[in-house]
Amino acid sequence: MASKHVDAGVLVADCVFCRIIRGEIPAERIYEDEHVLAFLDIGPLAAGHSVVIPRYHAAALENLPADWAAHVARALGPLARAVVAVTGADGYNILLNNGAVAGQVVPHVHFHIVPRRPDDQLGYRWHASPADAEQLAEIGSCVRAALR
Amino acid sequence: MASKHVDAGVLVADCVFCRIIRGEIPAERIYEDEHVLAFLDIGPLAAGHSVVIPRYHAAALENLPADWAAHVARALGPLARAVVAVTGADGYNILLNNGAVAGQVVPHVHFHIVPRRPDDQLGYRWHASPADAEQLAEIGSCVRAALR
Repeated sequence: MASKHVDAGVLVADCVFCRIIRGEIPAERIYEDEHVLAFLDIGPLAAGHSVVIPRYHAAALENLPADWAAHVARALGPLARAVVAVTGADGYNILLNNGAVAGQVVPHVHFHIVPRRPDDQLGYRWHASPADAEQLAEIGSCVRAALR
Repeated sequence: MASKHVDAGVLVADCVFCRIIRGEIPAERIYEDEHVLAFLDIGPLAAGHSVVIPRYHAAALENLPADWAAHVARALGPLARAVVAVTGADGYNILLNNGAVAGQVVPHVHFHIVPRRPDDQLGYRWHASPADAEQLAEIGSCVRAALR
């Protein structure tokens, strides 16, 4: 489990983000380490909109080894702090789109950091409704079972 | 740095999520370990909408120690897989709102897992525009400097 191989990144030939990692496609790189690369989005939602990716090709977060998810998460806070400091934003969203239905365009796990300002017309569409207590209990029971 | 104290969670008295962690407020808990708690949102955007939190009180991700961000990230993939399996969703968003301007309501770092289906009217408001190359280079340069 803790062998060196766990941390050996896996890249593929035809993935845009793997190609950025390999330097075959240019990007405004803002941070990199052994496991993680961050760069500015070329279609930004706001100034400073950044993308943070593992140096490991997995389309879906649930298929990314937990060690790699942890590596990416370690970078998110410091990056968000820097992006907010530079852009003077008031806050930020971190967003992962998993699956085409969720808005994922590039099938390589990536977290967006989107700096936020008042009245920027961004944010998540928040159409919430109060939970049905019975449904909540039933789903909870099923999820706990699925995790066993 | 690697002392036991790094992993000792810090909770506060008057935070709703710290109170859920301590069991003072009920929640439909779906997963917990030494560092992380996940429960179903009581105002769900979709069936299975879950909230994942560290057992460490920090309002902002950039103030959460990196080890704790890593702990939370390790739980996200398996939880998302279980929620999708149980609800039959086609994908999901993972969302963190950091700061009131970004939609944060409870000042304790939390990631939402929002199951997605076609035509569910959810998702992030994606008002992107092509980046200005000069601005991108300038922001990149400033962010790299801020990270040094």
